[in-house]
Amino acid sequence: MLKDWVKGEKPQEEEITERLKKARLALAGRQMAIKEKKLPVLVIFDGWGGAGKGSVLGKVIKNLDPRFYKTETLSKPTEDELRRPFLYRYFVRIPEAGKFSFFDGSWMDEVTRERLRGETKDEDYHRRLVSIKRFERQLSDNGYLVVKFFFHISEKEQKKRLEELEENKSTAWRVEKWDRWQNKHYEKCVEVYDEYLETTNQFIAPWYFIDSRSRKWAELQVTELLVKNIDIALQNTGRAVTVLQNTFPLKQMPKLSEIALDKTISDAGYEKELDVLQAELADLHNRIYQKKIPVIIAYEGWDAAGKGGNIKRLTAALDPRGFEVHPIASPEPREKNRHYLWRFWNRLPKDGHIAIFDRTWYGRVMVERLEGFCTENDWQRAYNEINEFEKELYDWGAVIVKFWVQIDKETQLARFTDRQNTPEKQWKITDEDWRNREKWDLYEEAVDEMIQKTSTEFAPWHILESNDKHYARIKALKTLIAEIGKRLEEK
Amino acid sequence: MLKDWVKGEKPQEEEITERLKKARLALAGRQMAIKEKKLPVLVIFDGWGGAGKGSVLGKVIKNLDPRFYKTETLSKPTEDELRRPFLYRYFVRIPEAGKFSFFDGSWMDEVTRERLRGETKDEDYHRRLVSIKRFERQLSDNGYLVVKFFFHISEKEQKKRLEELEENKSTAWRVEKWDRWQNKHYEKCVEVYDEYLETTNQFIAPWYFIDSRSRKWAELQVTELLVKNIDIALQNTGRAVTVLQNTFPLKQMPKLSEIALDKTISDAGYEKELDVLQAELADLHNRIYQKKIPVIIAYEGWDAAGKGGNIKRLTAALDPRGFEVHPIASPEPREKNRHYLWRFWNRLPKDGHIAIFDRTWYGRVMVERLEGFCTENDWQRAYNEINEFEKELYDWGAVIVKFWVQIDKETQLARFTDRQNTPEKQWKITDEDWRNREKWDLYEEAVDEMIQKTSTEFAPWHILESNDKHYARIKALKTLIAEIGKRLEEK
Repeated sequence: MLKDWVKGEKPQEEEITERLKKARLALAGRQMAIKEKKLPVLVIFDGWGGAGKGSVLGKVIKNLDPRFYKTETLSKPTEDELRRPFLYRYFVRIPEAGKFSFFDGSWMDEVTRERLRGETKDEDYHRRLVSIKRFERQLSDNGYLVVKFFFHISEKEQKKRLEELEENKSTAWRVEKWDRWQNKHYEKCVEVYDEYLETTNQFIAPWYFIDSRSRKWAELQVTELLVKNIDIALQNTGRAVTVLQNTFPLKQMPKLSEIALDKTISDAGYEKELDVLQAELADLHNRIYQKKIPVIIAYEGWDAAGKGGNIKRLTAALDPRGFEVHPIASPEPREKNRHYLWRFWNRLPKDGHIAIFDRTWYGRVMVERLEGFCTENDWQRAYNEINEFEKELYDWGAVIVKFWVQIDKETQLARFTDRQNTPEKQWKITDEDWRNREKWDLYEEAVDEMIQKTSTEFAPWHILESNDKHYARIKALKTLIAEIGKRLEEK
Repeated sequence: MLKDWVKGEKPQEEEITERLKKARLALAGRQMAIKEKKLPVLVIFDGWGGAGKGSVLGKVIKNLDPRFYKTETLSKPTEDELRRPFLYRYFVRIPEAGKFSFFDGSWMDEVTRERLRGETKDEDYHRRLVSIKRFERQLSDNGYLVVKFFFHISEKEQKKRLEELEENKSTAWRVEKWDRWQNKHYEKCVEVYDEYLETTNQFIAPWYFIDSRSRKWAELQVTELLVKNIDIALQNTGRAVTVLQNTFPLKQMPKLSEIALDKTISDAGYEKELDVLQAELADLHNRIYQKKIPVIIAYEGWDAAGKGGNIKRLTAALDPRGFEVHPIASPEPREKNRHYLWRFWNRLPKDGHIAIFDRTWYGRVMVERLEGFCTENDWQRAYNEINEFEKELYDWGAVIVKFWVQIDKETQLARFTDRQNTPEKQWKITDEDWRNREKWDLYEEAVDEMIQKTSTEFAPWHILESNDKHYARIKALKTLIAEIGKRLEEK
């Protein structure tokens, strides 16, 4: 791609000035439309060092109201970021609906740098590219406009510019060591960039090359392309997106109606086992901390199924400095304005830590599906999107344990009634719980579909039979211990 | 992709029967919706020999009304097809709006077979893949639903099936030599198929793998996926598609207003040159015929600019057995129901032949743009689509000569008036001509943009200054002779 690219003629200075005036006005004019249509716009500035990415970015944002954009300069990942999945630091910075985010350097920079330094194996590099393609596609599927610019200059031009910058004391700081390295290994860089650009030149987020021989000309290209892409995205109403086929290995799972709920444990057996298992878990917690293995525990289940009590029996065994419980309620406005997985990316644990989610990203295919909070196309796509999300976590090294806490309808009624009749439990029961109960059959259908479609081999569902809460707690502990144990053996 | 693919669990026989009944009804039910929404649906059956593509296809179409679908079995290209561009035989068979086309084997079969036989060089193969990606993207951009199935069976299963088919006299004919070759070189095929599938797994037309261990199960997967894809496509109203950046080398061209129209030739000079040039062209016609070089000549220009007379002076030099003139009027219904380039693909010459187009595919960015016959997004995309189209022709080996026949507004008025006042010329002038004349400025803007954006190095525009028709005729002959001459030298 980069190798074949032929730059067009540069217009006359006069024409550039004229068109730039128009394009700047047009871009400024699009801000309100973006806001009204709640379009999130992610703009990426990649390219050669010294090509003028920073100064053009500076020019472009001058036309915009500061309330409508953010800029991000991402150099090396921080120590904290290195402890999260590769995409984490990008995902948490995606724009809000109705706003711009400008990235001065993106994930391209990170992965191609590593590649050029010979720090990544072929296999890992390939996996990174797959991750990036999925990331960009998911953004697009979820209504994001992603515009990617590659600022291009020739080897000679780059050399000249770096020398000029270095000669001048006030600009010398702008030249990184890396820029000089690039220029010395220009041909090698072209090879790597070309492969990267070709592979990630997806239809939903294609690359635009910016002929960067002059700043003003580059600004014009960027501004005109931005306006054009925004206009297309704003037209794009009522879109529906292809639902991709599952390509992950799935485990066969029972339907909820097939699960025997008569499993119990004696009081004495419960107390004894609880002590033993909690001690075992406490020990494992130390070991994963030392080995920097992240653990993600997801709880879903019927209202009054006993999630809260179950979680308590896990956390009782854990060192409070090494875990966090995230109760998930309706999304807040700033969450609603983003990709639905954004709020979970934000809550990922550091490596060596445990995150427990009390309700999860699976809300997309349960409550959001049934209450019409997203379109049919949205939740149908979500199974694959979620599997991709969990695959990212798995590749990062996480142990993922997903619990479905199961009870039958009668047990729920008994617990609801008990809650209503016991003053100190009344806060636990709301009108919404009763309304949800009326939709039991619809939920059961959705849960069955969810469990079938998202029990991947790397992150299967585990059913906790919870008519007897004690039984469910012991099973949760055993499952978690077994899963962590498996991962420790692999390491 | 193929290497990593993990097939899911096969449902119980009972469940398959149940779901198949539903899916067949659903598919049949979609026929009217497809027709009403004018959705064209292209369905591709690729995969291993003996995997059951043919029999599943037979089952699927049983549910459909024969008026709503066509099936295509494309084995080897015919001699006639070998004389056209590679994509020709596929492009001419794309479905009409509101109808299905089912392909039993597609372009995948053709290019991977050649690849496996070692008949294509890396570079050519790569170019084929690029062509295919563009082809499929263009279909999708233009409102086509493209669904691609790959029928997968294991090496062992394929062996077993081929043996069974061969043992039985009534089915032995179904086993091709190629199927046996495939099975013997299964691993090698996997390598090639995997690369092909990965490369062509575009978001707009992704691959669906069909687990083909049982016919009924395969039919169920195909039918359910078809229904799902159709439902998404039917939802997809008001879509707008990204306009890709030009990546072809462009020549710098003048604006119409910059063209000097005072060029003339004396009557005596004209007659003399005409004779010489026509003799030269006649000679070249023989040579391109022998060398099998196709020539495509495109005429666009203002009403009354003198296209007709210009074309006559070319054809007078040509052997009638070796050329064809295509006058292009408004598209007929069957053309309107297809991709706008379809009617031009259908009119491509054989190699060694000349096709002259009196008005062309550039209608998309002139009359269709100005009269609102297509959306803004459609014509903005068209520059790139047309460049891609001409690149296909060029890669096939064609000489492409595009003429813009230019006159000024006064000359047009004089000629219109003359036509109106001369009884034997009155058929040449219509109310529409006068209406178009009123839009001169808008047309001029569109033509300028067209000439700037589609003067690729492999197919640039040539301006014929035609205030003096004689001058324009001589220039057309000279240009054509020069362009053919260049190509003959290269060969």
